[in-house]
Amino acid sequence: MKNVIVGQSGGPTAVINASLYGVVKEALAHGEEIGHVYGMVHGIEGFLNGQYLDLGKELTAEELERLKLTPAAYLGSCRFKLPEDLGAEFYPQVFARFEELEIGYFFYIGGNDSMDTVSKLSRYGAQVGSPIRFIGIPKTIDNDLIETDHTPGFGSAAKYVASTVREIVLDATVYCQKAVTIIELMGRHAGWLTAASVLARKYPGDNPVLIYLPEADFDLEQFARDLEAALEKQNCVIVCVSEGISDKDGTFICEYGSEAALDNFGHKMLTGCGKVLEQFVRSRFGVKVRSVELNVSQRCSGMVVSATDVEEAARAGVNGVKMALKGTTGVMVGFARVSGAGEAYRMECRAVDVDQVCNREKAVPREWITGDGNDIGQAFIDYALPLIQGEARREMEDGLPKYLYRK
Amino acid sequence: MKNVIVGQSGGPTAVINASLYGVVKEALAHGEEIGHVYGMVHGIEGFLNGQYLDLGKELTAEELERLKLTPAAYLGSCRFKLPEDLGAEFYPQVFARFEELEIGYFFYIGGNDSMDTVSKLSRYGAQVGSPIRFIGIPKTIDNDLIETDHTPGFGSAAKYVASTVREIVLDATVYCQKAVTIIELMGRHAGWLTAASVLARKYPGDNPVLIYLPEADFDLEQFARDLEAALEKQNCVIVCVSEGISDKDGTFICEYGSEAALDNFGHKMLTGCGKVLEQFVRSRFGVKVRSVELNVSQRCSGMVVSATDVEEAARAGVNGVKMALKGTTGVMVGFARVSGAGEAYRMECRAVDVDQVCNREKAVPREWITGDGNDIGQAFIDYALPLIQGEARREMEDGLPKYLYRK
Repeated sequence: MKNVIVGQSGGPTAVINASLYGVVKEALAHGEEIGHVYGMVHGIEGFLNGQYLDLGKELTAEELERLKLTPAAYLGSCRFKLPEDLGAEFYPQVFARFEELEIGYFFYIGGNDSMDTVSKLSRYGAQVGSPIRFIGIPKTIDNDLIETDHTPGFGSAAKYVASTVREIVLDATVYCQKAVTIIELMGRHAGWLTAASVLARKYPGDNPVLIYLPEADFDLEQFARDLEAALEKQNCVIVCVSEGISDKDGTFICEYGSEAALDNFGHKMLTGCGKVLEQFVRSRFGVKVRSVELNVSQRCSGMVVSATDVEEAARAGVNGVKMALKGTTGVMVGFARVSGAGEAYRMECRAVDVDQVCNREKAVPREWITGDGNDIGQAFIDYALPLIQGEARREMEDGLPKYLYRK
Repeated sequence: MKNVIVGQSGGPTAVINASLYGVVKEALAHGEEIGHVYGMVHGIEGFLNGQYLDLGKELTAEELERLKLTPAAYLGSCRFKLPEDLGAEFYPQVFARFEELEIGYFFYIGGNDSMDTVSKLSRYGAQVGSPIRFIGIPKTIDNDLIETDHTPGFGSAAKYVASTVREIVLDATVYCQKAVTIIELMGRHAGWLTAASVLARKYPGDNPVLIYLPEADFDLEQFARDLEAALEKQNCVIVCVSEGISDKDGTFICEYGSEAALDNFGHKMLTGCGKVLEQFVRSRFGVKVRSVELNVSQRCSGMVVSATDVEEAARAGVNGVKMALKGTTGVMVGFARVSGAGEAYRMECRAVDVDQVCNREKAVPREWITGDGNDIGQAFIDYALPLIQGEARREMEDGLPKYLYRK
């Protein structure tokens, strides 16, 4: 009888613990084939330093349920890139640890870099004839993994962005003067999360009226023309931008502001593109303008999660265990949308080759970006709407959400 | 039979519409004494320009219930200071409008400046022998009105701050390296909302470990010593600061960063104190550091509201109407905490002289600030905890909150 080890890696999401829940719950249900369910603390990096827990012993049934709705990464995380050279001494070291703990099944919940870890470990495992099965469980708010319809974490982040943008629109429209609000959203290379701001719209022409993604070149003069046209139609204009928008030469818009900006300590001020555009609008248009950065709450808000996303994240974990028990290795649990046009949304898990997934990024299709690069079309709305459905019933204590913490 | 007019003024909150709901609901229930229930659009400023609605006709019963849980200001708002001189032509103009609409009862929902409006109108009314009753309904996330235990809007903002800080703490502690996160919270003069970040703590010594309010002088060197001590005890340190913290000479900390910071368009960059402290920590400590500004979501988040706050905001509106019907004028609806020590929290509404309230601010008592100015004591926790209790059951549509909008 072999044991399971599971780890979390990369940035937190609202549902990465739901996937951990899925792995643990399913593994514990297979007591005839699986012994202990270990968790790496701080990912593969912590594991190499001997940091791990016995999750089957650590968590009561009640705590396991609480884990499912706790944001961020219960086991802690790391950003650790495995050596490219499979001959590096790292590999026999980590496999010796696997042997000590009698590991038969390895699960790693994360994004792009984590899938690279799964790919390398499974390739090294194949090379040395290891029987361990290596499975990747996807997670990223960026939604930029290929070979999967979407990634767990995106639905909740998209719901948070759409709800919050809708509220900021309400807030911004209480006065009757001309005013521009620029909302900067996460997404350095892929604009999926920024695109989700379109879901905040209640009718055609409603705010946010301008949306810019990294997938389309950003031009300051075109932006000025877009904004002028919008301000002619309405007093209050909300603009949503990805942090990673760049111009046709590949220069990030956030870099436009950094040259002259030194603080009193002589350091370069790090300014987001929202602030840069705020200053531009103030100087060019002379209207009231403010910028808002939604920041880390996009990825760690447990109060606004999509129940669909939570359940799918858990299913990804459950299916990973099932695949491993069937003997599959070197795969990531991918999501396939199996419903046809007009049918209710349905998703199925399938194994995809992890070597194909890692180190590649999925951009928002250029044809989903409309309005000469300043808007998002119906194709994205149809794609994203099913992913933000449903609310989670959260445990509360003293007026605040009750989450699970590692002791 | 006379009519009611009600308006909203100042910055939005999550529950200012719950007070509007309370006024409308109670006024409509007194059909024998009250005719129409009018709403000023964009406060007294819009009203003077002839902008108003007949709320009794405008809103269905279903919409009125939806209004109760819609954040921001349904009627729109304004920032408009009435002339100091009661002899100014403004006053007969606005009273002529009241007469046209046969107004008998005037309700104004807002903060400090709005209470100044109620005070001036009621003093002018007394001077000219007007029978109109003028009532102020308090609202501000800043909680800085005097003569009331707390203000509607604060409980929900405090709950939002405590929940969000707790999530940012979870997010920040996933890695095991030394790191500092600085969270900048609203509050230019009063630190009530920043103090609420202490509620995010789960046990003594938990993050946020350092909290600074405008009520205590901020000293950069003392901050460096506080932070050094905190970093010796733990890897991950969360610091919460009010936007309005200032040094012993009264210079705002956010001004420390502004001298050298000019953008590419030659304009002074407006930097918050969070950014200034981020740069300071980076330069002094060389650790990983980031700053997060919670921004407008503190006042307009409808997803994280306190049910206690919503109900109290509605009660303030209801009680305002009751007071007016009894003949009271020139008052604000104040909250008195009537429960004794150890008893369950209970609140009662009472009429307070609006002239006493306006243009004065209530600071956090200095003795509630502990730890040499870097912490918040139990007295505040006991005060604030009852105000953030309970969740509101919100109507959802297509995965997003369904709010009410003016047509």
